[in-house]
Amino acid sequence: MGSRIRIIMGSQSDLETVDEAIKVLKEFKEPFEARVLSAHRTPKDLIAYIRSAENSGAKVFIAAAGGAAALAGVVAAHTCLPVIGIPIETKSLKGLDSLLSTVQMPPGIPVATMGIGKAGAKNAALCALSILGASDVRLRSRIAVFRKSNAAKIRKIRLKV
Amino acid sequence: MGSRIRIIMGSQSDLETVDEAIKVLKEFKEPFEARVLSAHRTPKDLIAYIRSAENSGAKVFIAAAGGAAALAGVVAAHTCLPVIGIPIETKSLKGLDSLLSTVQMPPGIPVATMGIGKAGAKNAALCALSILGASDVRLRSRIAVFRKSNAAKIRKIRLKV
Amino acid sequence: MGSRIRIIMGSQSDLETVDEAIKVLKEFKEPFEARVLSAHRTPKDLIAYIRSAENSGAKVFIAAAGGAAALAGVVAAHTCLPVIGIPIETKSLKGLDSLLSTVQMPPGIPVATMGIGKAGAKNAALCALSILGASDVRLRSRIAVFRKSNAAKIRKIRLKV
Amino acid sequence: MGSRIRIIMGSQSDLETVDEAIKVLKEFKEPFEARVLSAHRTPKDLIAYIRSAENSGAKVFIAAAGGAAALAGVVAAHTCLPVIGIPIETKSLKGLDSLLSTVQMPPGIPVATMGIGKAGAKNAALCALSILGASDVRLRSRIAVFRKSNAAKIRKIRLKV
Amino acid sequence: MGSRIRIIMGSQSDLETVDEAIKVLKEFKEPFEARVLSAHRTPKDLIAYIRSAENSGAKVFIAAAGGAAALAGVVAAHTCLPVIGIPIETKSLKGLDSLLSTVQMPPGIPVATMGIGKAGAKNAALCALSILGASDVRLRSRIAVFRKSNAAKIRKIRLKV
Amino acid sequence: MGSRIRIIMGSQSDLETVDEAIKVLKEFKEPFEARVLSAHRTPKDLIAYIRSAENSGAKVFIAAAGGAAALAGVVAAHTCLPVIGIPIETKSLKGLDSLLSTVQMPPGIPVATMGIGKAGAKNAALCALSILGASDVRLRSRIAVFRKSNAAKIRKIRLKV
Amino acid sequence: MGSRIRIIMGSQSDLETVDEAIKVLKEFKEPFEARVLSAHRTPKDLIAYIRSAENSGAKVFIAAAGGAAALAGVVAAHTCLPVIGIPIETKSLKGLDSLLSTVQMPPGIPVATMGIGKAGAKNAALCALSILGASDVRLRSRIAVFRKSNAAKIRKIRLKV
Amino acid sequence: MGSRIRIIMGSQSDLETVDEAIKVLKEFKEPFEARVLSAHRTPKDLIAYIRSAENSGAKVFIAAAGGAAALAGVVAAHTCLPVIGIPIETKSLKGLDSLLSTVQMPPGIPVATMGIGKAGAKNAALCALSILGASDVRLRSRIAVFRKSNAAKIRKIRLKV
Repeated sequence: MGSRIRIIMGSQSDLETVDEAIKVLKEFKEPFEARVLSAHRTPKDLIAYIRSAENSGAKVFIAAAGGAAALAGVVAAHTCLPVIGIPIETKSLKGLDSLLSTVQMPPGIPVATMGIGKAGAKNAALCALSILGASDVRLRSRIAVFRKSNAAKIRKIRLKV
Repeated sequence: MGSRIRIIMGSQSDLETVDEAIKVLKEFKEPFEARVLSAHRTPKDLIAYIRSAENSGAKVFIAAAGGAAALAGVVAAHTCLPVIGIPIETKSLKGLDSLLSTVQMPPGIPVATMGIGKAGAKNAALCALSILGASDVRLRSRIAVFRKSNAAKIRKIRLKV
Repeated sequence: MGSRIRIIMGSQSDLETVDEAIKVLKEFKEPFEARVLSAHRTPKDLIAYIRSAENSGAKVFIAAAGGAAALAGVVAAHTCLPVIGIPIETKSLKGLDSLLSTVQMPPGIPVATMGIGKAGAKNAALCALSILGASDVRLRSRIAVFRKSNAAKIRKIRLKV
Repeated sequence: MGSRIRIIMGSQSDLETVDEAIKVLKEFKEPFEARVLSAHRTPKDLIAYIRSAENSGAKVFIAAAGGAAALAGVVAAHTCLPVIGIPIETKSLKGLDSLLSTVQMPPGIPVATMGIGKAGAKNAALCALSILGASDVRLRSRIAVFRKSNAAKIRKIRLKV
Repeated sequence: MGSRIRIIMGSQSDLETVDEAIKVLKEFKEPFEARVLSAHRTPKDLIAYIRSAENSGAKVFIAAAGGAAALAGVVAAHTCLPVIGIPIETKSLKGLDSLLSTVQMPPGIPVATMGIGKAGAKNAALCALSILGASDVRLRSRIAVFRKSNAAKIRKIRLKV
Repeated sequence: MGSRIRIIMGSQSDLETVDEAIKVLKEFKEPFEARVLSAHRTPKDLIAYIRSAENSGAKVFIAAAGGAAALAGVVAAHTCLPVIGIPIETKSLKGLDSLLSTVQMPPGIPVATMGIGKAGAKNAALCALSILGASDVRLRSRIAVFRKSNAAKIRKIRLKV
Repeated sequence: MGSRIRIIMGSQSDLETVDEAIKVLKEFKEPFEARVLSAHRTPKDLIAYIRSAENSGAKVFIAAAGGAAALAGVVAAHTCLPVIGIPIETKSLKGLDSLLSTVQMPPGIPVATMGIGKAGAKNAALCALSILGASDVRLRSRIAVFRKSNAAKIRKIRLKV
Repeated sequence: MGSRIRIIMGSQSDLETVDEAIKVLKEFKEPFEARVLSAHRTPKDLIAYIRSAENSGAKVFIAAAGGAAALAGVVAAHTCLPVIGIPIETKSLKGLDSLLSTVQMPPGIPVATMGIGKAGAKNAALCALSILGASDVRLRSRIAVFRKSNAAKIRKIRLKV
């Protein structure tokens, strides 16, 4: 079987953002697969990939796209698994277009939307892990440890004012 | 062969807006076909319809959708014919979401986007006619006559001030 | 044990929106618990509830709030379970404030954000079900049936144009 | 006869953006003519050019302008041929002003609006070609080949993750 | 000679807004002329009217339009007299489109833009009067009296709290 | 007597923008006076200056400010002469705040608002000149010459495409 | 001596919103004075009132205005006492204009800005009380009691789901 | 007893902005304490700190956060002392998200919101001082002196135009 988490991005340039998600998954040693597949430029490949991912053990999709960001919604249209959307920051509208295109889904087909850009990408990975963790108490504990370690870092900060 | 203009809307409630396009096409006696097909809820039907439309004489698509309005973009992803997008006005964000989701297409797959709501729908029909008119001088003349008649109506206005 | 899905709303007036989620859960016969708890007005009750929910079988939280909508983020800060946010439409800014307050989370604490208002509420329930479905193939099949039934309704539409 | 595609830009500085359209047209070996003509600063020259373009074989206009971007609308007011608008990214409002000024046309005079900036410019060329392709099956095939070549490039991407 | 103030609106429906300007001009007994002329639908009539207005004593233009509101800018492109723009409130974007289309003029062609809707229309009349008043000390005094009378009304308010 | 045009800016840093207005006035050899006076930080100086300007031949005020840009409105509150507002581009909101604070004046006190930033500043000078030109046919001719010279520059552009 | 809290609104129509503040102050039996005074239409009365309020025991100002809402900023320019701003909801831009005009103050002159409309007005009163409470532990206790009573009301809600 | 002013920021990177507040407090020789505490990542520490601050002489809180900026609201939920919010400028949405998340508080729990970024931070300090000054006439005089010194600096500016 393949990995439980599948990351799809609409363009190669999205990798810079998506990399924040990948770092988290690596830190958790959670296997994943990442692909460039476009809802607009390779629509058939995209649908084929979703089908094959479902058949090889995928449990959560993460989809990152910018502008008229149809990607996450199209993934969600073709699977009943949870789909997490990362709105990529865009040059002109700064990702407001990506955000609205990802989050304002019609009733019936949800996309679990994260914030714009790198913070959103990091959170996409953590959201995917929390989804897997909903039925996996050990993973949930590992998320708790991860959070505690982050909190400890914040506590150690000594401001020079 | 079927009609040259094919109208697709993402939801039955969009018909109230799309009706402005239909009225123009009827006035021009230009045949058309109108369908409810959703990029998110009936994605396979949508793709099948685009294919069959192309095979039965379609020359222009008009796609109307609201919110995370992937419809026009998905149609454009599956055809090389011109695709006109109508952003439907939405309850909360008033169609700004629909507009950005329709117009901010990635390079490679254009959607000819109209204004939000009824004015956009009326113009979608006129844009479709102008596209047909690019290779049909008689139709172009009829558009000119239509415009002159509108201009004449404006000229006849007597303001009571 | 209590229900797997816990719905929290920031104000009683949010129920009108949240009701769209409740209808879906009832249709799926998925048990849930719904509470009014405010991140700003009853912060201690909120934290206590999250703790008790985690201890009584909760697997997913749904949090609905409007304006400076801290609710979903505060829930997410206190649990490692998945948290779904519903941005409530507001009177002046139409939910843009609620959306940005819910979705733009800092790295480390994700909120799976839905669209603004009723469509978002309906999708929150479906997203929660898809999360449970990630480890429950039967539930996933039921979501697929639900979608097919919706698609069938769309197919039956006969437009009067 | 002159070229079928006529590009008008409101300012010389728009060429940097419009160049994306030009590259596509060159790749397709589709002749075009490009001019700087301003709706506000050279209104009479603009109208004269539209008239002469129509008389010398123009089939589609592409108009690029920023800010209170009246250009595409004014071109559309003077021709019944299809007019494609490119909203130029602006310094302060990032092209949101250009987009709304281009797309929110009154009923009766459509502008086929593209996305903001370079992606919009590239798509303007492809949209113009698709309009010509509506009555030219060979051109349509060439667009399909162009798309397939783009899809193939996406398929070849090997992410280093 | 004709009146010094010329009001142009893009559509008959704008009269409801423009009426606020007209009431002020009537109160000042300042003659004016009001016309419906569209930059997009009757462009030639518009240009002809500007020319004839200039030749018959016009000193200030007021132009009211909504959406992709090119009207004031096009008037300004054809006259060196001051042009005041009123952005009409629109159904979907509430006049933000009209405002940006009116105010964000390119360097070289100014439009003196008022606020959106009725307050803007009232102020357009007062701005036109202040422009005439710049070279007419008596008119300036009358504006001062008008303002004092408004201030006196505010002073008389007795709040019931 | 002093100069007819008085420029007020809210902060020294606004001079970079306002300089575009100054260049135009110098080109027209139109005398002006420019001051830094803040509606918020030197309110009494501001009011005193407006009074003295009115008494020394001022005919038009130009006011430039950013953010919660009260300046132009406060100037307009203290004079019946025409007041032109320049919204300064701001770091975070890019001048949208400045624009709305300047243009959305209450009924009774107009501010003739220009576009955001340098284009707006250049146009403020041209608007001031057109106001003076409303009663000065020679100045109006000079504006026409200025425009023709700009148009000629546009005509000379040879695009390298 | 007069009351410690002084409420200024820019227009009589703002009272409907401001009434939410007044209700809170009455509930706390905290004396206050409320006036209609406009930064734009009665600027001198406004300044005179601020001076007299300072001399008669005022400790906090509350200023409510809409659109280009200069009121709170102008009050803050004339007093070193804390100034709380209420952005009034507007017809077209829904109070986004009022919010930005109130909150985006230049460095040096703060306005403590509340949310748009009625919630903001209610909070303005509570903010004024908290400011008085900063040096008045009994008042602070009363605010705590007020909050507890509100929390108790939330706790009593029984949702019918 | 500890200092009267307590500054909390959501992330260490906010210090660059908050430093503008710190400089003012140092100039006034007003003691303060500054901490990094996150509403989302260290929620319990945050609540504990608020409690201990209240018990050690805190009179005003300043809270700075960006994005879904729940910090100031959560502080306000846990204290009846005045809370001043600084919306931090964000990368994608430029602080509009931070502003709306901070200012649009539900009725009952006010946050005294400043402008976005550094100007807001400087004003937060001045607002805190004005709150302390409401019951401390000497501090109020020092604020007046500070303002006069700023005004004097503005008066000394000699523009080179």
